[in-house]
Amino acid sequence: MTLNKQFRLAKRPLGTPTRENWEFVTEAIPTPAEGQVLVQNLFISLDPAMRGWMNEGKSYIPPVGIGEVMRAGTAGKVVASQHPGFAVGDYVSGALGVQSYGLSDGKGLYKVDTNLAPLSTHLGLLGMVGMTAYFGLLDVGQPKEGETVLISGAAGAVGGLVGQIAKIKGCHTVGIAGGAEKCRYVVDELGFDACIDYKSEDLRTAIKAHTPKGVDVFFDNVGGETLDLALTRINLKARVVICGAISQYNNTSPVQGPSNYLSLLVNRARMEGFVVFDYTPRFREAVVDMVGWLKAGQLKNKEHQVEGIEAFPEALLMLFKGENFGKLMLALPEEA
Amino acid sequence: MTLNKQFRLAKRPLGTPTRENWEFVTEAIPTPAEGQVLVQNLFISLDPAMRGWMNEGKSYIPPVGIGEVMRAGTAGKVVASQHPGFAVGDYVSGALGVQSYGLSDGKGLYKVDTNLAPLSTHLGLLGMVGMTAYFGLLDVGQPKEGETVLISGAAGAVGGLVGQIAKIKGCHTVGIAGGAEKCRYVVDELGFDACIDYKSEDLRTAIKAHTPKGVDVFFDNVGGETLDLALTRINLKARVVICGAISQYNNTSPVQGPSNYLSLLVNRARMEGFVVFDYTPRFREAVVDMVGWLKAGQLKNKEHQVEGIEAFPEALLMLFKGENFGKLMLALPEEA
Repeated sequence: MTLNKQFRLAKRPLGTPTRENWEFVTEAIPTPAEGQVLVQNLFISLDPAMRGWMNEGKSYIPPVGIGEVMRAGTAGKVVASQHPGFAVGDYVSGALGVQSYGLSDGKGLYKVDTNLAPLSTHLGLLGMVGMTAYFGLLDVGQPKEGETVLISGAAGAVGGLVGQIAKIKGCHTVGIAGGAEKCRYVVDELGFDACIDYKSEDLRTAIKAHTPKGVDVFFDNVGGETLDLALTRINLKARVVICGAISQYNNTSPVQGPSNYLSLLVNRARMEGFVVFDYTPRFREAVVDMVGWLKAGQLKNKEHQVEGIEAFPEALLMLFKGENFGKLMLALPEEA
Repeated sequence: MTLNKQFRLAKRPLGTPTRENWEFVTEAIPTPAEGQVLVQNLFISLDPAMRGWMNEGKSYIPPVGIGEVMRAGTAGKVVASQHPGFAVGDYVSGALGVQSYGLSDGKGLYKVDTNLAPLSTHLGLLGMVGMTAYFGLLDVGQPKEGETVLISGAAGAVGGLVGQIAKIKGCHTVGIAGGAEKCRYVVDELGFDACIDYKSEDLRTAIKAHTPKGVDVFFDNVGGETLDLALTRINLKARVVICGAISQYNNTSPVQGPSNYLSLLVNRARMEGFVVFDYTPRFREAVVDMVGWLKAGQLKNKEHQVEGIEAFPEALLMLFKGENFGKLMLALPEEA
């Protein structure tokens, strides 16, 4: 008999999450009541933001409660439905959490067109990751043709897309990533103009060398020292887009604030945060662009799939160790 | 015989400037050549930004060179002219430095109307201080009626005006200042809704108590801990205006970066710097508003005048010790 496998939050982590923070539960697959739909998850998205959801306290969405299934973006197939909007066999994306089957009342669940792109792409490039890159760069960063865009976490899911979109918009695009292999990938596969290896290069010197005309947009996924050094290179009226701060999420000490923030004053620049959910009403416009670029071969979709839900605790940590290339996700077998 | 008294930068300070950083020079009053004008300075502006100009290195304007007269905003009277645009007896404002007489070729020198307001007012409320408050709040901060505006350095020249303008715009206005006397002044004389005494109150608790609806605009003159705590109270889409960071200017250690900057992400907020000189083409529009508010009694002009150019080194430090109420300036006798 097939069971529903789940990871539930057992206790809140201090620093890096360990196995102890999770409870692995197997239970009967639920049956949808009137108005509900049952989805078999085939892909589970792993994102840096998940670390924040594990903490107590106010943020842009409530934390995951102790004993609750861990929140995660998902893509899957409807296997039973008592909901007029969904039929068995429909492919859907949503946020059904780290479990192999999830019930939904339809809110936040979207049918996706697998003729447009494979299912997993709807969790990555056409999902939150793609929307984050698209709106963070274009709406918050507002790059203009010929400007220099610097991107931290350039080999990550969001960063890799941001650089590709910046290139499409005619910008000089410089990435920062950890390790020679990642930097090769960022330049050779994703088409960035340059990539700085923060593990082997002096970051201050390298940023300066690769941004001879300064930095007009800094898209930051990393925080810490990287943000601080980028601030020393910004141009007049530069935009610093705060997308994340993965270097700081597992801190047990306070977050490192950007000591060079007064560069914002000297350069009449702004630093701005955003949350992708705010752009929901405009997702369609982004999807149209992204699919167009994908079909035109201007955008590469890189996914890093890890097999099986059981790998969740270790796979999540790959994000913080910088071990993923592109969009990290769990791939679950359809025949479970 | 009357001499020109000057303070020149003798060496760059580490930390707080002392007498050693200055050379007091007396020399003959210069004679204007063709195209020049000689101004007797009657008021010399003392501003936090002067500390930055004493440092070496790139900023929004070049540093003052060693041996040069210290840069400062000034207001005075033309006493000799070989310039077609200025006549003896004209009142002017400009940046002729910390000296009793200054030569100018007319660039950056403006005739002022002393019927509109007394000469010193043109150095304060109608000068850079007023322009900084006006454009920093209205253009960068963009307060809307009913919003909460929090202001650090509220008893200072810029902060005091920012709060008054915010009140005129219908905002709930909360100041932060040091000491009971300053807080009384900020509330009773300037008309802020509340003022927090950071010297006697717990800043975190007090900010929370006085901003029950959160903070929509934080106008920061102070930096450090104050900025960090304000970030914990910002609302969705809040604007953090970086005008200065007086708590950090005399640091011998690195500037304290805002550890809570990720609040910008959670709240989709922005932190933005500005430099008043960028608004020069729009100064007239601000002056019209400011004079109107002044005449209508909606704006109070508070000046803190210290007598005599000889007081300069100590008077400058009053800014960093928080000893001034309103716009700090040196007042020089007309009969020197």
